Amino acid sequence: MEFEAELIPAGGITTPCGFLAGATSAGIKYPRGTRLDLAILASTAPCRAAGVFTANKVKAAPVLLCQERLHQGRPCAVVVNSGCANASIGQQGMTDAIEMTEIAAAHIGKKPAEVLVASTGVIGMPLAMDRIRAAIPEIKLTAEGGRDLARAIMTTDTIPKEVAVRAGGFTIGGAAKGSGMIHPDLATLLCFLTTDAKIGADFLREALQEAADVSFNMVSIDGDTSTNDTVLVLANGQAGGGTISKNSPQAPVFQNTLNRACIHLARAIARDGEGATRLIEVRVTGAASLADARSAARTIVSSPLVKTAVHGCDPNWGRVLAAAGRSGAALDPDRLELHIGGIRLVKGGSPVQFPVEEVVKHLGGTDVNINLNLNVGSAEAVAWGCDLSEEYVKINSEYTT
Amino acid sequence: MEFEAELIPAGGITTPCGFLAGATSAGIKYPRGTRLDLAILASTAPCRAAGVFTANKVKAAPVLLCQERLHQGRPCAVVVNSGCANASIGQQGMTDAIEMTEIAAAHIGKKPAEVLVASTGVIGMPLAMDRIRAAIPEIKLTAEGGRDLARAIMTTDTIPKEVAVRAGGFTIGGAAKGSGMIHPDLATLLCFLTTDAKIGADFLREALQEAADVSFNMVSIDGDTSTNDTVLVLANGQAGGGTISKNSPQAPVFQNTLNRACIHLARAIARDGEGATRLIEVRVTGAASLADARSAARTIVSSPLVKTAVHGCDPNWGRVLAAAGRSGAALDPDRLELHIGGIRLVKGGSPVQFPVEEVVKHLGGTDVNINLNLNVGSAEAVAWGCDLSEEYVKINSEYTT
Repeated sequence: MEFEAELIPAGGITTPCGFLAGATSAGIKYPRGTRLDLAILASTAPCRAAGVFTANKVKAAPVLLCQERLHQGRPCAVVVNSGCANASIGQQGMTDAIEMTEIAAAHIGKKPAEVLVASTGVIGMPLAMDRIRAAIPEIKLTAEGGRDLARAIMTTDTIPKEVAVRAGGFTIGGAAKGSGMIHPDLATLLCFLTTDAKIGADFLREALQEAADVSFNMVSIDGDTSTNDTVLVLANGQAGGGTISKNSPQAPVFQNTLNRACIHLARAIARDGEGATRLIEVRVTGAASLADARSAARTIVSSPLVKTAVHGCDPNWGRVLAAAGRSGAALDPDRLELHIGGIRLVKGGSPVQFPVEEVVKHLGGTDVNINLNLNVGSAEAVAWGCDLSEEYVKINSEYTT
Repeated sequence: MEFEAELIPAGGITTPCGFLAGATSAGIKYPRGTRLDLAILASTAPCRAAGVFTANKVKAAPVLLCQERLHQGRPCAVVVNSGCANASIGQQGMTDAIEMTEIAAAHIGKKPAEVLVASTGVIGMPLAMDRIRAAIPEIKLTAEGGRDLARAIMTTDTIPKEVAVRAGGFTIGGAAKGSGMIHPDLATLLCFLTTDAKIGADFLREALQEAADVSFNMVSIDGDTSTNDTVLVLANGQAGGGTISKNSPQAPVFQNTLNRACIHLARAIARDGEGATRLIEVRVTGAASLADARSAARTIVSSPLVKTAVHGCDPNWGRVLAAAGRSGAALDPDRLELHIGGIRLVKGGSPVQFPVEEVVKHLGGTDVNINLNLNVGSAEAVAWGCDLSEEYVKINSEYTT
């Protein structure tokens, strides 16, 4: 299968045909007018939609409402706020989530059932509905509005995260936020994806799950899982052509392009983790099964001791082996082989002579590569995370106060 | 069952009859003469012995040797070093571990098979055997040597951890080290227990496992699991009386006393976690099963976001609910009830009015109590941990360099 996907410079969620977005500063957490915190994404045409949500049993109201509407309706728009998670506040949460979609629907000329909703921010506080009611009508939807949406969903993120990839006659765009409370197997915080490809509903769901599994589900910032994790995709078919379903020749192109868009955003989320100074990419090879490879890669990238060692540029490779050892993956300690930055540190489970200064230098760069070969099989997986810094502690000690 | 256990002030591992200990400064990691790093514990009489070890698949050589000797022999002594874990260095690790026991055995007049061994410190470096060979003969065993042993096993610990409890005509003593790479379900770093009670071998094993389950296995400092976790108990029967077995009237007294000694040490380990400024005790009640209660309590006490919130005296209770929600424990978000420092913050899953300043003051104390009632059953469990501070990051960024 030929696959030439093109990353579109400065592209984003409104790059695919027929998608509009806009945002405003409603003053939900910070004073009104100081930062964007409320946004709408809408398709000009009907859509197929799919979602992946948090596995946390304490789910925010917007998550529950999205799940319901994806099951029953044909959503083609999303309203989203930052500054408040609308989680753990009882029945009021659902009442407010529904009202947000009603106000947004009235503003953009859709039915409430066509509008999905997402929230991110502090848990346990009610939404400032008076400010949201006042602000939604101010939002202007434009074909250049993707960047504003990407900014409006940021919390402790330091940069907006966007992507657009073109391949096979269609385009996929996306915007995401990350930063904290991020851990594998549960989608991630918020990610919205758009595409003008014409996709069957079943295949869209399957493709989104696969893409989430190789991207957001392989990112860990701090081992905590949000109540609000949401990944949504809207497909409006505006690129034309036949419907792509699971058995279409175009199916692998769509899957690969979606994977690429999601991995791009996942890496951006990992690099911008709370307090992060560098991206850590852990590749585990030679595993007995894919599940083992995924588990080992995620355990290593999540280990506070690995993360602090990377932060301190300390080639303390024993911590990598110890993390693999507690991951549950089948392994033989005497077959482990470890490379950091392409330099071999461990062979047959024992240390070899290596140029320490070169490894220290690699650990001090912006991208740290850790490759562990378990040498017991042929499965492999990649996980992404970031170093653990004093700044992470500072950010999270002072979040609500 | 009447149970009057007496905590012995300033008691330790040599408080029970017939146990001697001593330590020296071998210069394993720090310059010789600057800090104690090598110790021996020995019973003057034959012992029953049992152990609980790390579940990490990458096990240090001393762990493997202990498991073998507990299976085959009748150990009555332990030699232990800090400053080097003797882990992940291939066959040399086992050779050195065996030699350590041989030298110690010769020095104290035992057989090598009667000597257990433990190591803690950096992974992936060989033991400085020349220094250990020179230093072991210097160790003088005395009935007051427990304190020196407790100091010699410290790594980033800031205080030695000892306990002695007397009940029912016998005494249990203990010394432990903790600080980092500590996480539930895997014993803990190093803990040595002694008792002059006369105990059957089978019951000693079972009692140690139960005591570890309610103490060390409910402590989490950082979610990482050591390659070297070891809990050992030696019982020399010097207190006299009949042998205590599972069905003896004395069995519950022994079990409760052992639990108490282990919980005392576990709390001391949690309070002295790397960078910790306070102890966090999480009690989960109303769980559907004991496994659920344990899982929820440990997930909450391990959550970086809960730990940083406590560090910042931030009553960000949503993080506690979110941690419970991802723990796997059965729960209904609308039935959760949360108290912090005895003050109710959440009822029926929603926030209630509470005196914020009082909760902030409690979070700023030395002991933080978090009680979450799931209200779906009657099982309960307690877990211990500590806050996450900038100091933790500092300590672990600079550990080997």
